[in-house]
Order: sequence, then structure tokens, then C-alpha cells
Amino acid sequence: MRISELSEHTGVPIATIKYYLREGLVPEGARTSATQATYDRTHLERIRVIRALIAAGVSIAGARKVIAALDDPPDSGHDLLGAAHAAVTPPLDDGLDVAEAERLVAGLGWRPGLCDREVLGGVARSLDALRGSGFTVPDEVMAAYLDALRAIARAEIAGIPTESPEAAVRYVVLGSVLVEPLLLALRRVAEQIASAERFGASEAKE
Amino acid sequence: MRISELSEHTGVPIATIKYYLREGLVPEGARTSATQATYDRTHLERIRVIRALIAAGVSIAGARKVIAALDDPPDSGHDLLGAAHAAVTPPLDDGLDVAEAERLVAGLGWRPGLCDREVLGGVARSLDALRGSGFTVPDEVMAAYLDALRAIARAEIAGIPTESPEAAVRYVVLGSVLVEPLLLALRRVAEQIASAERFGASEAKE
Repeated sequence: MRISELSEHTGVPIATIKYYLREGLVPEGARTSATQATYDRTHLERIRVIRALIAAGVSIAGARKVIAALDDPPDSGHDLLGAAHAAVTPPLDDGLDVAEAERLVAGLGWRPGLCDREVLGGVARSLDALRGSGFTVPDEVMAAYLDALRAIARAEIAGIPTESPEAAVRYVVLGSVLVEPLLLALRRVAEQIASAERFGASEAKE
Repeated sequence: MRISELSEHTGVPIATIKYYLREGLVPEGARTSATQATYDRTHLERIRVIRALIAAGVSIAGARKVIAALDDPPDSGHDLLGAAHAAVTPPLDDGLDVAEAERLVAGLGWRPGLCDREVLGGVARSLDALRGSGFTVPDEVMAAYLDALRAIARAEIAGIPTESPEAAVRYVVLGSVLVEPLLLALRRVAEQIASAERFGASEAKE
């Protein structure tokens, strides 16, 4: 198909697709003349993936790393997850103290040595931000978070498909990032339901 | 204390504090002369809250709504949660179909009528983005998400302090938003641990 059809099918403007091509995020099409190229399903899917990553708040640089992992899959499932996380995790700031994050993680029988330090750094950074705002997560609530996220992670990792490396890459890289907005949105729904249960709100807000 | 001290204690530049003052996000200090004012703990805490909200990705407009809920607390806990969510939830797009989100929510014995439609809209929007990228959440994983988030929400709502409306407002408004990065960061740690359990990664990544 032509670039105009790619644009129609994906809803992404032609200028943006050209930008993705220049940036190497989308592979070149097959040249049919000096000024024309033709594209196929691969290009279509790639553009959809990029659009979804960007809609989920991933930067162009982060999208590039995700695309690199899709193009050249690491050997093991664990390394794959590491690549996915690296694509969306900021580097560890100098001077960021991860000791508290390690204690939090270790306190639940998890071994912090199994985690990338950048990922632990994300926990440390969010704990710092909470402390800075003067907000404290009650211990019982923190315990509920850890239990619930452990259950979520186990289900997710158990669900990694093994039929092909491509399928595994897609699942890990996209699932890790694109599911975040869904989880946050579902949490808000769950909070409203739990709040209605506790405080007895009237039904049918239209 | 003077504005320079406010800046030192919070790490927020004086120019930014002046912007917050102009925007009405931080209340005026007590005038001591035509060009000087003095500030107290209230101002310090308010600036910390704003900084934390912005660090968590909340817009200035969203921060303004959160501040309004802090300044003028709604009567019931349930309305309070609604105000917190409204501050951080985009309005419902025309044409966004929330039917699938309602089915997802109803399928677990939740009553969609108990939720604000904007919050359901968040679920619908994230489901659309996932579909657009060609990513499907396996049924067992979705079931794990719903169970886990229900457990999280129950613990959070049970933890709402009742000793004062101010304490409840702080807890709901800030907890609802500021905890999001912590949950996402802990999920990544949990994923790496679960992945190490399944694929047997070597320990001690330094």
C-alpha cells in the first residue's frame, strides 16, 4: 500500500509517518520509483505499536529502545523483560538512595539482587516524592499493594507466550508499558466501588 | 519566613513560587511592607503538595482542582474521592464508547452505576489504546488485575482517616494521585522477581 493508505488505516498523519521513517522507527518501504515506496502489514503494525507507546507516555527515545528489542529479541525471557523495562525506566540519578526501596522489597521475602537497580530506583524515587508531599502510605495499605502487585506480576509472567520469540517480545515489551494506564484506570473504578460500599453513595450518576 | 527561605526549604525556585502565588495555588503571605510578605508552615506544605502533584504528572489545571478540594472539602468521603478523581481525569470524549468498560466492570459483580462516567471513560480509553496496538491481555491476567485492584482499593478506602475532614482530604486526594508512580514502580520490581522465578536469572546485577 502507499503511504497515504498507511495514514488512512492508522489515523497517523503522513508527515508523522515520514518522521518515524526518518528516525528509523519504521523500516523503509520497498522502492517502486525514485519518489514512491510501497508498504505492507509490517509497517501498519509497527506504526500502531509506536502510536500506542507514545499515547502511553513513552518518549521517542524510549520507543526507539522498545522497537530495538522487537527487532532484535534478547535470548532469555528474563533479559527480554529487562530490555522492556530499560526502555521505559529513567537512568538511576547519582545520589539516589535505594536502601529504603531495597528494605521494602526485601521485607516481603523478595531478593533485591534479582532486580535491576534502575527499577529499584523507580521505587526509591516515588517514595521520595511521597515523602516530599508529606503523604504516608499506611502500613496495611502498603502490605495490600505488595501482595496485590505480586499476584499481578505472577499472572503476567506466567502468561508470557512461548510459541515464538516474537510473540514473547510483543507480550513483554507492550504489556509492560501499555497496560499501565489500564491498571491505573481500573484502580480508580475499584476505588469508587469500594468507596460506595463504605460510604453508601447513591447509584446512577449520569 | 521570607520567600527566599520558602525556596530554600522546598527546593522550588523563587520565580516558581511567585508563579504559584499569582495563579492562586499558594495563598498570599502576610504583608510586612509594600514589597515584602512573610510565610509560614501552611505555605511550605502547600508548595510541597503542588511540587509532588506536578512531579506525578498532574497539570497546573489539575493541581488547581486538587487544591480547591483541599481548601473546601466536600461533605462525604465518597464525594471527596469523586473530587480527587475529577481533578486528575480528563473529560469524557464525545463518541467514546464505555459499553465494553462497563461489561468488564460489571462482569466482576461491580455495578458500573456506582462509578463516575469519566472514570469509566479512562478504562475505555486504555482498552482502545491496547486494541490499537494489537495487544491483548489474556483472560487469566485480566482476572488477576481485577482481583488485585479490588483488594488494593478496599485497603485504601478502609484506610481513609476519619479524625478530621482535612486528614481525609489529604489522604484521598494525594493518595489517589501520588501513589500511582509507586504502584507502577513496584509492579516492575514484582515482574522482575516473578521473571527470575520463572526463567531462573542469575542474582546480583550491579
